[in-house]
Amino acid sequence: MNVIVGVDIGGTKISVILGTVTGKIIEKCVIKTQRKGGAAACIAEIIAIIKALLLKRSVKKSDLLGIGVNIPGPFGEEEGVILNAPNLKGWQGINIKKILTRHFRCRVICNNDANTAALAEKMFGCGKKVRSLVYVTISTGIGSGIIIDNKLLMGANNNAGELGHTVVDLNGPRCNCGKKGCLEAIASGTAIETIARNVMNRSKRIDEYKNEFAYKKYCTTHTHFILSPKGSILQNIQGKITAFAIEKAAKKGDSLAKYIYWRAGYYFGVGLANVIQLINPEMIAFGGGVVNAGSLYFNAMNSALKDHAWPQPLKCCKIVKASLGSRVADVGAISLVIEDLRYKHKR
Amino acid sequence: MNVIVGVDIGGTKISVILGTVTGKIIEKCVIKTQRKGGAAACIAEIIAIIKALLLKRSVKKSDLLGIGVNIPGPFGEEEGVILNAPNLKGWQGINIKKILTRHFRCRVICNNDANTAALAEKMFGCGKKVRSLVYVTISTGIGSGIIIDNKLLMGANNNAGELGHTVVDLNGPRCNCGKKGCLEAIASGTAIETIARNVMNRSKRIDEYKNEFAYKKYCTTHTHFILSPKGSILQNIQGKITAFAIEKAAKKGDSLAKYIYWRAGYYFGVGLANVIQLINPEMIAFGGGVVNAGSLYFNAMNSALKDHAWPQPLKCCKIVKASLGSRVADVGAISLVIEDLRYKHKR
Repeated sequence: MNVIVGVDIGGTKISVILGTVTGKIIEKCVIKTQRKGGAAACIAEIIAIIKALLLKRSVKKSDLLGIGVNIPGPFGEEEGVILNAPNLKGWQGINIKKILTRHFRCRVICNNDANTAALAEKMFGCGKKVRSLVYVTISTGIGSGIIIDNKLLMGANNNAGELGHTVVDLNGPRCNCGKKGCLEAIASGTAIETIARNVMNRSKRIDEYKNEFAYKKYCTTHTHFILSPKGSILQNIQGKITAFAIEKAAKKGDSLAKYIYWRAGYYFGVGLANVIQLINPEMIAFGGGVVNAGSLYFNAMNSALKDHAWPQPLKCCKIVKASLGSRVADVGAISLVIEDLRYKHKR
Repeated sequence: MNVIVGVDIGGTKISVILGTVTGKIIEKCVIKTQRKGGAAACIAEIIAIIKALLLKRSVKKSDLLGIGVNIPGPFGEEEGVILNAPNLKGWQGINIKKILTRHFRCRVICNNDANTAALAEKMFGCGKKVRSLVYVTISTGIGSGIIIDNKLLMGANNNAGELGHTVVDLNGPRCNCGKKGCLEAIASGTAIETIARNVMNRSKRIDEYKNEFAYKKYCTTHTHFILSPKGSILQNIQGKITAFAIEKAAKKGDSLAKYIYWRAGYYFGVGLANVIQLINPEMIAFGGGVVNAGSLYFNAMNSALKDHAWPQPLKCCKIVKASLGSRVADVGAISLVIEDLRYKHKR
């Protein structure tokens, strides 16, 4: 039986799996990322596990279709060289493709987690029936992967799909990437935490928040809302302000917490509107922790889409929650090899 | 010999051409768009000219590969139905594809001018050697067409490539399309004329312009610049303020005129940065009248690209002036048929 090896390297754990061309996972083994010996020890163990799993399933060399590797950050232009992924300290500069190719003499395909997730949802998840799909994960950061004409859009030097680092508000905060006004800096889980902390600390930024487009827009429909810590239950959790805690407060009806989610969702919608105007995709699918906020975030997103996307491309874009859930990274790693088999040599 | 018919329907004139699969134009006939009898009379003449040209060149029915039709506006979802193109009054609702198909019983492919221009530049112009290209025309409006993997990106319902209607500044002016903050409303030739008129008339909008990101940015490097009509030579051409007149004033060193172009160019760069972050194209090519402003516009664009695009995708994106010039619409009309022959049935 043909099998594919998937390696999902995350900040806390690494999954090594065996899967089939139909996306089924038949073996899985999980190890910790943080350990004595660092990246080198991890890679040695990944190789040992792959060998053990192949042996366990009696996979002949000719039946191994390839290895797909998924990391939470960017690869360099030379495919397989890990750049400075914030969650993978100590892995920078490692050429994981070269190492695995040397050991297994097979096709090794590497990509970042947002791209592999897009591919997984396209092949085996919510996007099975569409030809174009934009997958967006909204958690501490905002990552995305774009599928056009059934294929992953990699771009001229593997940098396509950086929705999180498109500008939605030039006057917005500075992003971790160094630019100003990025979607990630204003609509991610981290951005939600930052504004909550600033408002709680009565930081000098509060006035800037009041000048924002989103605030003015919100005040047209929420006439009694004032951006202030006064009366908010967030005051009770000072020092423990997380996106999840703010979500809980908002769900209890706290008006400050509700606005904080609304603001992030609105700017997210502006970023998506730009994607819809440019790419006119059949589907946009969401993953990541912020999705759990539900209508707190997505009502505002829909409002922004109505304001900033044209009705024609908007009406034919299915906007859905991604369907693979926690399986997305494992299935994604396998999908990399399947896509490569299908398209690479036709390109 | 195989031939292709191209029909370029513009607001003032219509070209009917015969071309080859290599993009060569072998016959061309131009008529006026505005005439007694309106669209119906135009279409009757287009048909008569096509017949005459085919007869002149003794083209057999089997040698006619198809007809490509290019219009300055959108088609409906049913390919070939002209929507409300502002420059084609009286043509709305006409199904040009159906009419031509009925007369010539051949392949008829329709598209808007920005998409056909992108295709023409990809096939026969500056983009021959690249696989992905974004063509942008900057004139009264901003239109664009996107080529990915050698193919025109049409989107789920033919609405892809609307760079001119992506948001670059939420606080920006309202666009003709009804949305707020569109690139077209702040960086096109029309936008250049609007701010010049408003400043000249000392309209209440001047204060808003001073609050803009671009103004603040400009003032960091141009310490003595004040946004005011005082001392500007634009005062001498009140009532005749055109983008071209402002360009001339700027080239003479007028500081207000220079800022007006800089501002438009800067916001244009922000819009392009978003394209680069999302699509990571190999090439961006410009057409349209504003290109003549040269460094007045493009220095600011480059400054914005440096501020808002990542260095990796930016460095591998060739940013060039489109090469087909005035031939782009004719060659584009032919290219539509060539692309359809190449890819349509493989999709």
